[in-house]
Amino acid sequence: MQQFGVIGLSVMGKNLALNVRNHGFSVSGFSIDKPEVDAFAKYEDDKLKPCYTWEEFVNSLEKPRKILIQIMAGDPVDQTLQKLLPLLDKGDILIDGGNSNYHDTNRRYHEMEKHGIHFIGMGVSGGEEGALNGPALMPGGDEAAYEKVAPILEAIAANNKEGKPCVSYMGPEGAGHYVKMVHNGIEYGIMQEFSEVYNLLRDVAHKSDDEMSAIFDKWNHGKVEAYLSEITSKVLAQKDDLTPDHVIDHILNVASYKGTGNWMLEDGVALGTPATVVAEAVMARFMSKQAYLAVKSGIKPTKFEYKGEIPDNLVDEFEKTLQLAQAVAYAQGFQQLTMAAEAYNWDLRYKSIAQDWEAGCIIRSAMLKDIENAYSKGNKLMNLFQDDYFRKLMEENLPALRKSVEFATKAGVPTPTLSAALNYLESIINPDLPANLIQGKRDYFGAHTYQRNDREGTFHTEWYEEK
Amino acid sequence: MQQFGVIGLSVMGKNLALNVRNHGFSVSGFSIDKPEVDAFAKYEDDKLKPCYTWEEFVNSLEKPRKILIQIMAGDPVDQTLQKLLPLLDKGDILIDGGNSNYHDTNRRYHEMEKHGIHFIGMGVSGGEEGALNGPALMPGGDEAAYEKVAPILEAIAANNKEGKPCVSYMGPEGAGHYVKMVHNGIEYGIMQEFSEVYNLLRDVAHKSDDEMSAIFDKWNHGKVEAYLSEITSKVLAQKDDLTPDHVIDHILNVASYKGTGNWMLEDGVALGTPATVVAEAVMARFMSKQAYLAVKSGIKPTKFEYKGEIPDNLVDEFEKTLQLAQAVAYAQGFQQLTMAAEAYNWDLRYKSIAQDWEAGCIIRSAMLKDIENAYSKGNKLMNLFQDDYFRKLMEENLPALRKSVEFATKAGVPTPTLSAALNYLESIINPDLPANLIQGKRDYFGAHTYQRNDREGTFHTEWYEEK
Repeated sequence: MQQFGVIGLSVMGKNLALNVRNHGFSVSGFSIDKPEVDAFAKYEDDKLKPCYTWEEFVNSLEKPRKILIQIMAGDPVDQTLQKLLPLLDKGDILIDGGNSNYHDTNRRYHEMEKHGIHFIGMGVSGGEEGALNGPALMPGGDEAAYEKVAPILEAIAANNKEGKPCVSYMGPEGAGHYVKMVHNGIEYGIMQEFSEVYNLLRDVAHKSDDEMSAIFDKWNHGKVEAYLSEITSKVLAQKDDLTPDHVIDHILNVASYKGTGNWMLEDGVALGTPATVVAEAVMARFMSKQAYLAVKSGIKPTKFEYKGEIPDNLVDEFEKTLQLAQAVAYAQGFQQLTMAAEAYNWDLRYKSIAQDWEAGCIIRSAMLKDIENAYSKGNKLMNLFQDDYFRKLMEENLPALRKSVEFATKAGVPTPTLSAALNYLESIINPDLPANLIQGKRDYFGAHTYQRNDREGTFHTEWYEEK
Repeated sequence: MQQFGVIGLSVMGKNLALNVRNHGFSVSGFSIDKPEVDAFAKYEDDKLKPCYTWEEFVNSLEKPRKILIQIMAGDPVDQTLQKLLPLLDKGDILIDGGNSNYHDTNRRYHEMEKHGIHFIGMGVSGGEEGALNGPALMPGGDEAAYEKVAPILEAIAANNKEGKPCVSYMGPEGAGHYVKMVHNGIEYGIMQEFSEVYNLLRDVAHKSDDEMSAIFDKWNHGKVEAYLSEITSKVLAQKDDLTPDHVIDHILNVASYKGTGNWMLEDGVALGTPATVVAEAVMARFMSKQAYLAVKSGIKPTKFEYKGEIPDNLVDEFEKTLQLAQAVAYAQGFQQLTMAAEAYNWDLRYKSIAQDWEAGCIIRSAMLKDIENAYSKGNKLMNLFQDDYFRKLMEENLPALRKSVEFATKAGVPTPTLSAALNYLESIINPDLPANLIQGKRDYFGAHTYQRNDREGTFHTEWYEEK
């Protein structure tokens, strides 16, 4: 009998199955797509079994069965569950490793629970290469069921610098997919922050692609040690196959998206989370398309030519800027997790989430260790910048972030996420936000009432016009 | 027989019914809340009839019946429709004047259509006072049915400066409520923009409440002629009932919301609209609460003390800033309407929408005439700033907006919507957004492919690590 089963054998499912086998566990693989099974069968040995029918697959697994479903999110997952249900026994464990919306995972968790089946929604980050050699895994659902699959998941996951596997129980119901959604929202945020600094270096400081590649490489060995720094450096250095130029100069300025960042924004709006960096990053992708269409439709862009000074320490200021802006992207992600935990009654493990992201995933960075530390102190943080380390980082780097936004403003370069990061921080430390004027006007035109800063209760003013 | 019926006689319904009667039409009023009918009965005369049962109400109306439902949005509307259906005849016209979500209105429109009933979802803006003396009305649904109620709606609506009523057919299905939702999103945006300028005047330029009231009054007679300027001035001048101070200084810095701005943001995300000013305004309300909770939980704010220069022409620069920022809020609203029209296959009447908002509603302003003009030229505008007038306004006022954001950045004052407005404009006129770097990295870590700027097709690079 095989110890683990995988349904769906396209590149992610196949690589995860091979990863399981490579760590000494026996695995069965099945797909409704016969050519996928044929390709998988080439790896067949005493630990790896290709299956061509649902029954063959299910019957090949030891009980309780442990089955990873690695297929396209949406309807196909529900169809797979319907196919599996009559073949399973109570106590079997299903893991959905796709990019499912957490609302669906919540629903499926409770549907499966009724049948005595444990359902684990698991975020998987790291792409094809990570799937084979060590992804970051974000499982949520029933904790006792998780413990039964933990030995296998821990074996296949990436390890952080201390050798701890990047997988642990995230929380109940759809919490695993929620954490993955927030991971992706943070990814949108940090990628856009990097792009804005690239825009400034390119168009205002007139750095060459190779110079910029060297700068990001330096930052990756400095204050912004992160996978996204590393690959930014590599992408900028890459030569084109079709022209003598660098490929970056021929890639169209229109960003695509699959939508998990959008989901985070939608849920953030429902929760009341001020995840402005994520919002601006999602909308910067929208804007890239709108701006492209505008130019195509004949709107003449009139680029502002900056004639001012370029500060000597510009590159160092940008490094501090990105370090702090990256921290804000993480902070907003953890703020949304904190608000989701409260709203959905989830006991989320913030320390585990940070540790989970330290290797294998797209947003891995040295800073996640500092976030892990912040959440290790047993503090219930409302905001990451309550933590001493991050408070100090903010105080030290805020001048650089201000300077960078000021510089971009003078130079006419859009910096939606850097501006959002700055405004977020200024709002945290500013005790006198001007929301009182909004409340005053809402009471004026709609009699919506207001609260006061000097006494309890709800108040309404008889404004001039009413007198 | 009465010419018009109103269901729901709390202040909005009662005032709209009185408004109908005051314009010479006969009206019946009904509510499931008997005390509301009792209160309404005090206005009884030969043109105004209070009704105490569904049957009495429905039977009092001439056919085809024209019934305005003015009750709380949500389930109560569906319950009302279920009560009414057995009593109505084919061809009767129902108007939902509440703040319904347009998704509900779409659904109800089609449900009622099956029964031969015309359903008009209508946004109403202007508050209690507007309901009585002239609201802005935004009806959508079946155009032929609208024409039958148009004489009454045109009579009760506010009139713009040329004496045209602020009501006309907006578009099919839930388009009327969609337009109202966008109205409210724009309202969130402009109110937050005003608050940020207020924050700068108050905390950096150290103006008194009365000085600021005078400044907004001057702007209301200058470049920012708008209802929101007018009432900002009045709110700032208002003395407190409970202290010797101005009331504004005792209103708590936490903004409330009923959520129609949030709906616009959620739909904007679904459509791919870069409505960043609305997003930042919605999230600034969230932030006002988070910042308040943070201070309450013991986080010490460390307000940055600006020691720099205050420019002599600061107030004039702010006036130009708000004029342009207001234009961006409108532009993003109309951009979302344009994208909704395409996505939902709605023939929206942009010129009518602008004209509709010229009086009676919260976002009424002199600028809406310019927007009406922009859409009168028969141009299909992708973006309001394609129009010559707004293009010129942008060119003239962009330096002031840049200066204001630069000033706020130096002064450590958060300006989320002013920054968003600036970044939006810089993105429109910048032909080289840095989305190419995002696409390069997405292809690097996820093999998501990219398009090129020099040839057609879809491309994937074999990046270093893969070689």
